[in-house]
Amino acid sequence: MSSYQAPITDMTFNLFDVWQLDQYWQTNGQLQDLIEADTAKAILEEAAKICEQQIAPYSADADQRGAQLTDGKVSLPTHYYTAYQSLVEGGWTSLSGDPQYGGMGMPKALSMMVDEMLCSSDIAFSLYPGLTAGACVALLQHADDTTKQTYLPKLYSGEWSGTMCLTESHAGSDLGIMRTTAKPNADGSYALNGSKIFITAGEHELTSNIIHLVLAKLPDAPAGSRGISLFLVPKYLLDANGGAGVRNGVSVGSIEHKMGINGSATCVLNFDDAKGFLIGEPHRGLSCMFTMMNYERLSMGSQGLGAAERAYQNALAYAKDRLQGRITESDANKAEPIIGHPDVQRMLLNIKAMNEAGRTFATWVAALLDKSKYDNCVVSGQRANLLTPIAKAFMTDQGFDACVSAQQVFGGHGYVKEWGMEQLVRDVRIAQIYEGTNGIQAADFMLRKVAADKGTVLFSLLDDIADELIEKPHVSAAPLTKAVTDLRAITTQLLQKENVVLAGAACDFLALVSYILYGYMWYKNLMALDTSKHSSSFIDAKTHTANWFFSRILPRATGINATLNNDSVMLYNLAHENY
Amino acid sequence: MSSYQAPITDMTFNLFDVWQLDQYWQTNGQLQDLIEADTAKAILEEAAKICEQQIAPYSADADQRGAQLTDGKVSLPTHYYTAYQSLVEGGWTSLSGDPQYGGMGMPKALSMMVDEMLCSSDIAFSLYPGLTAGACVALLQHADDTTKQTYLPKLYSGEWSGTMCLTESHAGSDLGIMRTTAKPNADGSYALNGSKIFITAGEHELTSNIIHLVLAKLPDAPAGSRGISLFLVPKYLLDANGGAGVRNGVSVGSIEHKMGINGSATCVLNFDDAKGFLIGEPHRGLSCMFTMMNYERLSMGSQGLGAAERAYQNALAYAKDRLQGRITESDANKAEPIIGHPDVQRMLLNIKAMNEAGRTFATWVAALLDKSKYDNCVVSGQRANLLTPIAKAFMTDQGFDACVSAQQVFGGHGYVKEWGMEQLVRDVRIAQIYEGTNGIQAADFMLRKVAADKGTVLFSLLDDIADELIEKPHVSAAPLTKAVTDLRAITTQLLQKENVVLAGAACDFLALVSYILYGYMWYKNLMALDTSKHSSSFIDAKTHTANWFFSRILPRATGINATLNNDSVMLYNLAHENY
Repeated sequence: MSSYQAPITDMTFNLFDVWQLDQYWQTNGQLQDLIEADTAKAILEEAAKICEQQIAPYSADADQRGAQLTDGKVSLPTHYYTAYQSLVEGGWTSLSGDPQYGGMGMPKALSMMVDEMLCSSDIAFSLYPGLTAGACVALLQHADDTTKQTYLPKLYSGEWSGTMCLTESHAGSDLGIMRTTAKPNADGSYALNGSKIFITAGEHELTSNIIHLVLAKLPDAPAGSRGISLFLVPKYLLDANGGAGVRNGVSVGSIEHKMGINGSATCVLNFDDAKGFLIGEPHRGLSCMFTMMNYERLSMGSQGLGAAERAYQNALAYAKDRLQGRITESDANKAEPIIGHPDVQRMLLNIKAMNEAGRTFATWVAALLDKSKYDNCVVSGQRANLLTPIAKAFMTDQGFDACVSAQQVFGGHGYVKEWGMEQLVRDVRIAQIYEGTNGIQAADFMLRKVAADKGTVLFSLLDDIADELIEKPHVSAAPLTKAVTDLRAITTQLLQKENVVLAGAACDFLALVSYILYGYMWYKNLMALDTSKHSSSFIDAKTHTANWFFSRILPRATGINATLNNDSVMLYNLAHENY
Repeated sequence: MSSYQAPITDMTFNLFDVWQLDQYWQTNGQLQDLIEADTAKAILEEAAKICEQQIAPYSADADQRGAQLTDGKVSLPTHYYTAYQSLVEGGWTSLSGDPQYGGMGMPKALSMMVDEMLCSSDIAFSLYPGLTAGACVALLQHADDTTKQTYLPKLYSGEWSGTMCLTESHAGSDLGIMRTTAKPNADGSYALNGSKIFITAGEHELTSNIIHLVLAKLPDAPAGSRGISLFLVPKYLLDANGGAGVRNGVSVGSIEHKMGINGSATCVLNFDDAKGFLIGEPHRGLSCMFTMMNYERLSMGSQGLGAAERAYQNALAYAKDRLQGRITESDANKAEPIIGHPDVQRMLLNIKAMNEAGRTFATWVAALLDKSKYDNCVVSGQRANLLTPIAKAFMTDQGFDACVSAQQVFGGHGYVKEWGMEQLVRDVRIAQIYEGTNGIQAADFMLRKVAADKGTVLFSLLDDIADELIEKPHVSAAPLTKAVTDLRAITTQLLQKENVVLAGAACDFLALVSYILYGYMWYKNLMALDTSKHSSSFIDAKTHTANWFFSRILPRATGINATLNNDSVMLYNLAHENY
């Protein structure tokens, strides 16, 4: 059984010392009355209690029992019901909700950290409140006020939950070819028919109603992705009092048997003349859904980081406890803790360096989103947009690698179920795949976020970083300056190449930018250290880990750079039949 | 369900065109009457039939049912019994056995390929004949002739099977601290007491007897690993006719529940005054066991390659079949096969390039072992020794990465069980862990195989490669020359550093050497292409994949080189309590 303790010290270090968000909150008219440093810390501490005590200890049990479908009803691991009730009673499901509809209105930089804790505790469980929060974001932005008044308070309170229904069996990420239809009813509603697959939290009894957000095509829809509309389809149609009334025409066909996140009910949902309500403009459903998906994509990063944090904690404890081999002792019968082995230190430091940079990165992106939302700051919005695919793809790729490395620290014990390490690997693997595979994220990053504006937003960010490194240099971060310069050069070079090369280079390019931004995160960590505020052991660990990053991880950028340098159209012309 | 077809064309290309082993076999006195090209090809074709028809189609079923322990007996997936019987009847269990004791005496280069097929079909199943083959190697080399006469024929025939019993719960890879004892009996045998864990194929009913090779300490044993002796402990003691007689004092305590290879019974074995027979000299058991472990380590590489080959085949088929997105078509409702996407090509080519280089590498190492064994060729032996940890660690690391990438090609379908991709990931993961973790392999490589002789064997190999590249250059392989030069430089530099740095650098160094040797493998592939023998599509695929390797994979070496360049003692001095 793997244990978990929320990394509150590092979280508050990021919030208050690295990014000084308490100071930002005080300058903002909407946030200054809602949140300040002590409240934020108290919120993290309370969230930690639920996660550490009510969710994390039972994640292995949830994996073993899984979600079960019987007679059209999905049952979940028993403790999910009590843990979810605790979230509801503590108001946790409304954390990031709009205060106008009963939400707590907390900034993303804070709610992201609660997301991380939930994901460390049990990714499968985290999806139930997570999907609801995403659905709320889409409704808040695109629904009319009556719809918001009707649905948001009960979604925020956790009484109801939400889903997003995009995928069809023949149409994964290619939504333009979907077949689900929506025909107008006489009363202004729509009749939906079709079948959706991979619907997370699609059916369960955690909540008294489930509000599905469904993509479908109107009869007059133009072809392709410009012909998709968004509909709200409740599991139970509302009665006269706005409560859950008669059952709607949506039912679960089956649930998937998966590699991991077994506690999450991944459903095939069938819509048979299901009554739905149009959200936003006709044929504009995809852009409405992307609002939700972008929110989810950030939360995906938390899944990677959350699993990796728990994996690290357990690998570290095991490395200190497990006696194998002699490093300093000469007594042939006396073994020492494996943390003494340089190769074990290598694995631990790789994980630690990437996790802590990842947490700083996630806080950064969340703060950019907050500044975009609360201050209408254009630059922050552009940068959040640029960095979102990195938060999704790089953080989940690194999260997976971290879990695999942490499992490796356990040797054979990492492969048996009882230690919980193999579950972390199985669970976190999904985060690289769903909500747009990491390959799709990379294409989005390379083509839409960088190539489309000829690198303007990226170059502006790199300029600011380069300036900051000149104005306030840090000796340990010296290699970063050259890495930023090299990145500018290879980006300029890539932007002159053909689209097919950009698409083929996308994953490597995303990784290259990410490593350099993680270097910037370590620079920010170093600059935030303060002997008057932080313990010497904290400062020692941060300094050492930063050095590790700059010496042993950042040089990977050199290899990726060399790879991208060689890219050409010729590499993508092997006839498909010759593979 | 994932399918599988043995890659016989690439196998024979490696045997006969790349390494021209048919010519070597004809020059060797022991091999020339046993094997030639046509026989070798027929053997591969027959092995393919069993693997493709009797093992591979049922691997998902084996995963689901798993090995089950009931009342001290282990039951296996039903088809394991019939498939194993087919192996026995076809003489496959004796493939690499010594003809003096009933083996077929096939060279390793050929039997390795059958290993690969078995591993593609079902790694868990492959372990039953695999462990037996390993036990036979240890007995052949270290047992006295009577013991060999008694046990080898029945092990080769597959009537009996073998195990290796090393690990104890407190002593994983640190065998020196083991507690299992062996006390001399009056009749010259020994009474063994203790408990071993992680014993693959430790108990089952596939065979009528199981011959355990057990490490234990004699009463007068010196401390540490120099005090370990090797014992043969049959599950059933032999009766007067040499058949399985009364039950010995060895029993299964429990079996592990694991991430994968569920069809393999991973046992806790308890020895209670179990009767054992000393193999080899007292206190020299570890070196006897290493004979077996080195054999197993090569087979580990086949596990990585085998799983990766099957993963590639299925990802390729899916990529050609799955319609998503538009690459060339402008019709918004018409999707094209995802193999048209450059990022999908990237994943497929990465896997293909590493798999085919891996197969050439495995054949090379096996051929070196053959030349060492049959010709007493010292250089071949030294090189096989040098390359064995690479075959174990790099081939399994790459095998895991390949399975993860192939799973990624499937998107969400890769995560659900029915497609079989997630099982390949779970199954192959163990190969990085057991038989000495890949970290231990890297330490062995860096410290014992390179640093201990000041790089002599490695440098001699690099000299030969460099000479060959000058004498017979190939334009596509041009980047390899510089990579070899850079490798010499960083190796020379590393060898001047402290042991702690070498130990910390070991994994990266092993990867660096491996990438460059894989580059040499692609050079050898290119040089073996012959328009008079090979189809134009085969030549096109090989040429293209080689270019991919040199352009998009070999540059990774630059990054690793830069990382190693930065290594220093300072990076390993973070106090353990500050992690």
